Amino acid sequence: MQYSSQYLEALVRSLSRLPGIGGKTAQRIAFHLLRVPTEEALALARAIEQVRTKVGSCRECGNIAETQPCYLCADAKRDRTLLCVVEQPSDVVLIERTGQFRGLYHVLRGALAPAEGIGPEQLGLERLRERVQAAAFREVVVATNPTGPGEATAHAIAELLAGAGVRITRIARGVPVGADLELADSVTLTRALEGRKEL
Amino acid sequence: MQYSSQYLEALVRSLSRLPGIGGKTAQRIAFHLLRVPTEEALALARAIEQVRTKVGSCRECGNIAETQPCYLCADAKRDRTLLCVVEQPSDVVLIERTGQFRGLYHVLRGALAPAEGIGPEQLGLERLRERVQAAAFREVVVATNPTGPGEATAHAIAELLAGAGVRITRIARGVPVGADLELADSVTLTRALEGRKEL
Repeated sequence: MQYSSQYLEALVRSLSRLPGIGGKTAQRIAFHLLRVPTEEALALARAIEQVRTKVGSCRECGNIAETQPCYLCADAKRDRTLLCVVEQPSDVVLIERTGQFRGLYHVLRGALAPAEGIGPEQLGLERLRERVQAAAFREVVVATNPTGPGEATAHAIAELLAGAGVRITRIARGVPVGADLELADSVTLTRALEGRKEL
Repeated sequence: MQYSSQYLEALVRSLSRLPGIGGKTAQRIAFHLLRVPTEEALALARAIEQVRTKVGSCRECGNIAETQPCYLCADAKRDRTLLCVVEQPSDVVLIERTGQFRGLYHVLRGALAPAEGIGPEQLGLERLRERVQAAAFREVVVATNPTGPGEATAHAIAELLAGAGVRITRIARGVPVGADLELADSVTLTRALEGRKEL
């Protein structure tokens, strides 16, 4: 036993499994949780428990939700002719933060990865098609990640919705704002050149 | 609301309070906890709860303990003539990891900081004196931090135990092993020169 308590040992092990948390940080957090007022430590435990017992998926868009439908789908002020398709709930947060998109979302909860057994069925692409056909969207913005699986998913969606009478767009890939050109890889630079616009 | 769930919001806020966890990492961990199997997320919640409800302080040494006394104090193979004084339970882990110390510990749970109301009484220095006088220690190694409060505490302990017929030592301060000299500040370098030894 590395620590003088099996419970501390279990906590460090559990914390080490979190993304971005190495062994040293896990230990630091565990001792921190032992030191703070009991109330504060238990509040974290309760927050984890509640997020897993009280948060579900929106039956409309697949985003995390406490209500059916979620507050975004229920919001009468959103533009119901615009749909943005993303991989994860966290992507919705990122796009909402820009303040530039006022439409609805469709959260796939993943991207095509046949090798890992994630095909069109697992992503519910058929459900996406039905949703688009049943509603009056004029544009579907595909905002899956600019990675292999994300691009494959984007292409599958474009094929799936071809003929549905809706404009299908893909978010621009290019050089990130605020970084030097030399930091961009050549694939990104190629996309940036291809996507150039009049000044 | 930044997220589509008040529970997610509360979890991110709670995670952001942990040491070494910024806003971005907190969000990443929260979404991770929403994605993993329920069992895994709840295991972390339970681990936090148990560490606060089942782990206490050893009445002998002040270290975290599940039993009275703790497993270190109860271990018949430890050298009962050697005592190492540290500030925090995490310091015990660090020293145990070196495999170089086989004595007992005394955990102060802090260091002298009069401005924050932490004096000799809050650290239980009198209890330390009683413990040393009642036992047959031949050496007390003071391993408080090489910081202002840690040094002040070390001096207070040296005064407190003067005349108790026990050797009082302080861990060496010097240049950290494996780093270039130019990375050491001049106070550390001064201590390293003062503490020089024959080659």
